[in-house]
Amino acid sequence: MKIFFAGSIRGGRQLIPTYEYIIRFLKSRDYTVISEHVAAEGLEKVEATMTEQEIYEKDANWVEESDCVVAEITVPSIGVGYEICHAAKHKKPVLCLYEAGSNASAMVLGNTTGYVTAKPYSNKKQLEEIMLEFLEKKE
Amino acid sequence: MKIFFAGSIRGGRQLIPTYEYIIRFLKSRDYTVISEHVAAEGLEKVEATMTEQEIYEKDANWVEESDCVVAEITVPSIGVGYEICHAAKHKKPVLCLYEAGSNASAMVLGNTTGYVTAKPYSNKKQLEEIMLEFLEKKE
Repeated sequence: MKIFFAGSIRGGRQLIPTYEYIIRFLKSRDYTVISEHVAAEGLEKVEATMTEQEIYEKDANWVEESDCVVAEITVPSIGVGYEICHAAKHKKPVLCLYEAGSNASAMVLGNTTGYVTAKPYSNKKQLEEIMLEFLEKKE
Repeated sequence: MKIFFAGSIRGGRQLIPTYEYIIRFLKSRDYTVISEHVAAEGLEKVEATMTEQEIYEKDANWVEESDCVVAEITVPSIGVGYEICHAAKHKKPVLCLYEAGSNASAMVLGNTTGYVTAKPYSNKKQLEEIMLEFLEKKE
């Protein structure tokens, strides 16, 4: 199963350790994460060698090729919001994770497309449980 | 012509004065802005009386009813990103405005749907010129 992981890039990189944790966990359970770069420290430098259109096309195509999307939405990001909508339009189940107490968007929390689920987490154990529950339903 | 204005709500409210300026300008040119509430100081309190689903449905429907979308994307926001994608999928022209020097998303800058335009602005005069150019093309 191919998972597109979405996390903030230009919106702010403060949650890179959480993005890394999520990707490592998914890989340890033998899922393929097609957007591992989201957690890469030097990503901005890599993307600087690509045109904006190349980045857009790559991400949009990866969402379309994926079986589902896991998004960390604690750090607000235009790109992540765009990707969640793009995934829902392509009928991909999307799991949106956010730190308990943070301000998640109504476009996610109140989403009625039937493809978007949002869950708060308070610790890593809970984060893992939420991901497994979502992924096990999918298999 | 009905314009949906998109600006950050839960992502951060620091640009309310700019949102107000944009909405006031559009109204002064006789455009109808169907999401004027985005610039309202007490919006969080109003939305607290609605369910998340009601907020989602209202915004998604308003985007669909609009003739075009003007989005201020300087403050990162999951909701604004979602709305830009939703608008593009419904074939609505979207103008994304951002302060020159801020980090606009590649999902907007590199967007190849044909519906999304992004423009930086350095001052209010430029902001007005960009909006007029976009809107005049539409008429």
